[in-house]
Amino acid sequence: MNGIVVQNVARANGATIDALGACGVSTVHEAQGRTGLLAAYLRPIFAGARIAGSAVTISAPPGDNWMVHVAIEQLEPSDILVIAPSSPCEDGYFGDLLATSAKARGCRGLIIDAGVRDIRDLTEMGFPVWSKAIYAQGTIKASLGSVNVPVICAGALVRAGDIIVADDDGVCVVPVEKAQETLAAAQTREANEADKRRRLASGELGLDMYKMRDKLAALGLKYV
Amino acid sequence: MNGIVVQNVARANGATIDALGACGVSTVHEAQGRTGLLAAYLRPIFAGARIAGSAVTISAPPGDNWMVHVAIEQLEPSDILVIAPSSPCEDGYFGDLLATSAKARGCRGLIIDAGVRDIRDLTEMGFPVWSKAIYAQGTIKASLGSVNVPVICAGALVRAGDIIVADDDGVCVVPVEKAQETLAAAQTREANEADKRRRLASGELGLDMYKMRDKLAALGLKYV
Amino acid sequence: MNGIVVQNVARANGATIDALGACGVSTVHEAQGRTGLLAAYLRPIFAGARIAGSAVTISAPPGDNWMVHVAIEQLEPSDILVIAPSSPCEDGYFGDLLATSAKARGCRGLIIDAGVRDIRDLTEMGFPVWSKAIYAQGTIKASLGSVNVPVICAGALVRAGDIIVADDDGVCVVPVEKAQETLAAAQTREANEADKRRRLASGELGLDMYKMRDKLAALGLKYV
Amino acid sequence: MNGIVVQNVARANGATIDALGACGVSTVHEAQGRTGLLAAYLRPIFAGARIAGSAVTISAPPGDNWMVHVAIEQLEPSDILVIAPSSPCEDGYFGDLLATSAKARGCRGLIIDAGVRDIRDLTEMGFPVWSKAIYAQGTIKASLGSVNVPVICAGALVRAGDIIVADDDGVCVVPVEKAQETLAAAQTREANEADKRRRLASGELGLDMYKMRDKLAALGLKYV
Amino acid sequence: MNGIVVQNVARANGATIDALGACGVSTVHEAQGRTGLLAAYLRPIFAGARIAGSAVTISAPPGDNWMVHVAIEQLEPSDILVIAPSSPCEDGYFGDLLATSAKARGCRGLIIDAGVRDIRDLTEMGFPVWSKAIYAQGTIKASLGSVNVPVICAGALVRAGDIIVADDDGVCVVPVEKAQETLAAAQTREANEADKRRRLASGELGLDMYKMRDKLAALGLKYV
Amino acid sequence: MNGIVVQNVARANGATIDALGACGVSTVHEAQGRTGLLAAYLRPIFAGARIAGSAVTISAPPGDNWMVHVAIEQLEPSDILVIAPSSPCEDGYFGDLLATSAKARGCRGLIIDAGVRDIRDLTEMGFPVWSKAIYAQGTIKASLGSVNVPVICAGALVRAGDIIVADDDGVCVVPVEKAQETLAAAQTREANEADKRRRLASGELGLDMYKMRDKLAALGLKYV
Repeated sequence: MNGIVVQNVARANGATIDALGACGVSTVHEAQGRTGLLAAYLRPIFAGARIAGSAVTISAPPGDNWMVHVAIEQLEPSDILVIAPSSPCEDGYFGDLLATSAKARGCRGLIIDAGVRDIRDLTEMGFPVWSKAIYAQGTIKASLGSVNVPVICAGALVRAGDIIVADDDGVCVVPVEKAQETLAAAQTREANEADKRRRLASGELGLDMYKMRDKLAALGLKYV
Repeated sequence: MNGIVVQNVARANGATIDALGACGVSTVHEAQGRTGLLAAYLRPIFAGARIAGSAVTISAPPGDNWMVHVAIEQLEPSDILVIAPSSPCEDGYFGDLLATSAKARGCRGLIIDAGVRDIRDLTEMGFPVWSKAIYAQGTIKASLGSVNVPVICAGALVRAGDIIVADDDGVCVVPVEKAQETLAAAQTREANEADKRRRLASGELGLDMYKMRDKLAALGLKYV
Repeated sequence: MNGIVVQNVARANGATIDALGACGVSTVHEAQGRTGLLAAYLRPIFAGARIAGSAVTISAPPGDNWMVHVAIEQLEPSDILVIAPSSPCEDGYFGDLLATSAKARGCRGLIIDAGVRDIRDLTEMGFPVWSKAIYAQGTIKASLGSVNVPVICAGALVRAGDIIVADDDGVCVVPVEKAQETLAAAQTREANEADKRRRLASGELGLDMYKMRDKLAALGLKYV
Repeated sequence: MNGIVVQNVARANGATIDALGACGVSTVHEAQGRTGLLAAYLRPIFAGARIAGSAVTISAPPGDNWMVHVAIEQLEPSDILVIAPSSPCEDGYFGDLLATSAKARGCRGLIIDAGVRDIRDLTEMGFPVWSKAIYAQGTIKASLGSVNVPVICAGALVRAGDIIVADDDGVCVVPVEKAQETLAAAQTREANEADKRRRLASGELGLDMYKMRDKLAALGLKYV
Repeated sequence: MNGIVVQNVARANGATIDALGACGVSTVHEAQGRTGLLAAYLRPIFAGARIAGSAVTISAPPGDNWMVHVAIEQLEPSDILVIAPSSPCEDGYFGDLLATSAKARGCRGLIIDAGVRDIRDLTEMGFPVWSKAIYAQGTIKASLGSVNVPVICAGALVRAGDIIVADDDGVCVVPVEKAQETLAAAQTREANEADKRRRLASGELGLDMYKMRDKLAALGLKYV
Repeated sequence: MNGIVVQNVARANGATIDALGACGVSTVHEAQGRTGLLAAYLRPIFAGARIAGSAVTISAPPGDNWMVHVAIEQLEPSDILVIAPSSPCEDGYFGDLLATSAKARGCRGLIIDAGVRDIRDLTEMGFPVWSKAIYAQGTIKASLGSVNVPVICAGALVRAGDIIVADDDGVCVVPVEKAQETLAAAQTREANEADKRRRLASGELGLDMYKMRDKLAALGLKYV
């Protein structure tokens, strides 16, 4: 199961990926039927980052970051690294040297269900990371893992080439084969929301705008 | 127990509320005998916010945010929404549309023992939230809860009309009937602290200022 | 075991301490053989702080901050307070008055395996704190603890005079007797990293730079 | 707020209490509209205990069990001690000596949102405890708390005299004024369940017994 | 994505399933290359249970157990129910009535990444459950989920028909297409272990039996 | 720092060790001034075990149990293995084969700040373990750690030869040089408690037995 590097991963086209990124995590999650979220404990190391890209996945042994070097060679511009340890771990698999290397390949950021370090440097480089922990604990390079195999990262299935969308709300994965369909739904949703936002801002109530009063009364809501 | 909206909630006067907000969470908590804090896991979505207002409470089913729409109609200017799920939940009950609607009614912010989303938008709007999680997970509108009934939110009892004070230190609740008394105690405390702060800044030790040396020696403190 | 204040603690010289601080937590941790990290749950109250100093340790009863006053008298310029409760606690042992007092003695910051409060004030003062929680819960002054005895703080042994290094990556402790040796190793490491960073930034792969390909192949890594 | 012992607490009659205990936590919780549960992290120290009784409440400082002695004097036969620390704590407030004393007064058990110790002795005595932790950490007797004031214990409001029901499923509180009404609802529920259990055991499906098929189809459930 | 019930799920043959169960979780996990474990926080409600069966999966909304009734109809003898809430939840989805119904269909047990209740009854029935929590919190029947779609349960991918092995060590999933291969590896492993166990019991050291001394010395292990 | 095996560790005499074990964790912890407890999250894999022995310590890399084999050779009859991973880990370092080997050397049990597996076998063997997790996750044998160096295990400093006492209340460590003094204090404490237990059982109140009423009144306790 270990020791495999899958090459030639199919990716969605760049325009679709970027458009999904512009929609953001919450909208994309809703657009694909409220699926695809990674766990809430993944948090960005600095506020305001907003990225989308194709996943290059890494299944790594606990406390061993050797496969990250292998994965970096597989990066194409705009890709995002996704690291899942093979058992729960919060060690700092990734720091400024790896970020420098990944960035040189065009990598847009890192999603890791473990720890990250060199936060100051990564922040200065503008290299965004969503991680389970910030932890300086060093790792070793002794055992094989795999690259671009399907992984479960923070409770979600991520396959190489799937689209990752990440922002201040967290991280969402879109299966590559649903990229177009999800984008269409997300953009429709966004268009609908603009009008609602304007009406709510003007003081109209959701109770009226969504015509909820009758349904609530029918269920027995009582005002006292 | 569910399906009730209490109207005509008594609130403290605005000047008292604002004065409590100016004192801040730590001072108000001390002033009412070290009571009223909500759990430390409630954290602000952005730094620097500092609000006070009357609580409009929501008891909501897990993963169902329908009652938030109902509650928004009950908001008066300067109120604060307080959402307590009826069982532990970290779903994202609240985002930019609800914030837009609440803000249009004059709402000062949200306290939620669950998740929130659209962090970037809420930050840009300057709509502060103290939450248990940041999580994009969408919710449904299927079941009734109640509005303005007493709730336990993050380990504290909050009744409609009670005063919520929230800042970078967390969240504190002041029973509406103790608002004046607590404010008086808080302001006295603040006055006392100004002088202490000046003396400590000049290098005077707490050991001397508070005359602690004899008591410590009596208890057996030994310098070696 | 309790009720002891150790005076006349040996400290490393200031230049060594400052040089360790300049290296930062991750480098220092690696330099001393990947040891000395405090637990990842200790987080800074504001981003960007970077300090080093000699530890003045406090073993405190749960919810009782009396010993902090005792410890402040023991501070020398550039020292760092390290507070370990004698059983798990997240109460707010430390706020703006104590920070004012500690700062007046030249204290560079606080490491606490419990809670801290007055975050706004501490941020404005530029007084950095790494804590387990932000919590306004007030404490009492009733029981003795000890000052400058060895403590276990967030899973690491800290003795008075040991060097604390803290930054956005967390907190590391360097035994005072290993300060010189650790500094030398840290500076060597830093020198090595500058060249690596430049090569990785130019697109060279870690696989080549570190000559990993043969070893990976020997272990059986397969490209498919 | 502290330093108060409320005497002469009104209690429900013993037959009602015992009957609620016989219904058990899950049934009683359902019978009062799915309210009253204490948090799931309260676990019994041994399996199989099943008790009900009137609450004698204790608000105790962190790491200080002095008030337990005060509360024991307030115990009447069949009462249950309910301890809530004034800030989060897992110290061992209660062990075999206190259990011996409480048992001598007829106390049926302890609910504690903190730690307990002497597990072997308590098990041999058959004195049941539902606690947040098992922890030998000793406590002190230095500060006042209160007895028989309302407390928030593990996320639920408990007032002196309220009925506590506890078994392997956890802990539930019934407001004393709703004891009769809740018991009636619980017993009705139990009667209904006996027939359902028999039918399900014979192989009838819930889908048919509860006539769910049409509703599910109407909502769009598809068999593929 | 929701509202689907997949029928006619392919299952492994019963002899293979039972043989995997006899090997137990740790052996099966090792036999398939150290994969397939569900998270350690899933714990059995009583000690000593040891089961294997084909998964009937349920994706359920938070706090809504309607789909369990739908799933029970899909059970064949020896199957195991696997419930994954669509967002984190610890409510008690399952109790004695559902267990009675499931057992009547030949179900061997339940794996649930949420809560369970009626522990006493389930224990008396000998119906084993591995759950994230024991919690009496009642659920509703309002929204659709799906049955026999792939789910992520406690961090592992489980598809309908995959083999679940569960015992005191936790829970492991074996992809149905790897059942034979995994069983063969597990049985080989067991055979090997019997001899090792005998030798170790007689006092032979692992250092000698596995011929580790030279490798350890080569890596630099020093005896002092 | 790594790769060291310390031999010829000084141990306390067997009678002292056994007598400390007979006192139990809570009494020993109190007897040495309320120090020495390991964290409450260490729990026994089965109830009722009660052991004491000299610590053979292991500092192990995350997910690597090679050093356990090295440590087993260092065991003398009545010793207890103490495993601390060098970064947080819950993998299953230890199972029935290692237990068989350790038991053959006279080892009395295991304390591990990580995971353990083969619970059924260990229970049948009567080999007690206090662990952070029960988790079948397999480990590797690739990197060196150290044996019989000082470790921080679950928040407590343990040195080779220190006495470990463990029972249903958790785990306590007694520095070897304080063994006699702690035993004397523990036995005195036990003697005192027998009389207290008898008096409390007869209905005498702690308030009277410990003469607390005046002190409580002096602090302001009010009966209402």
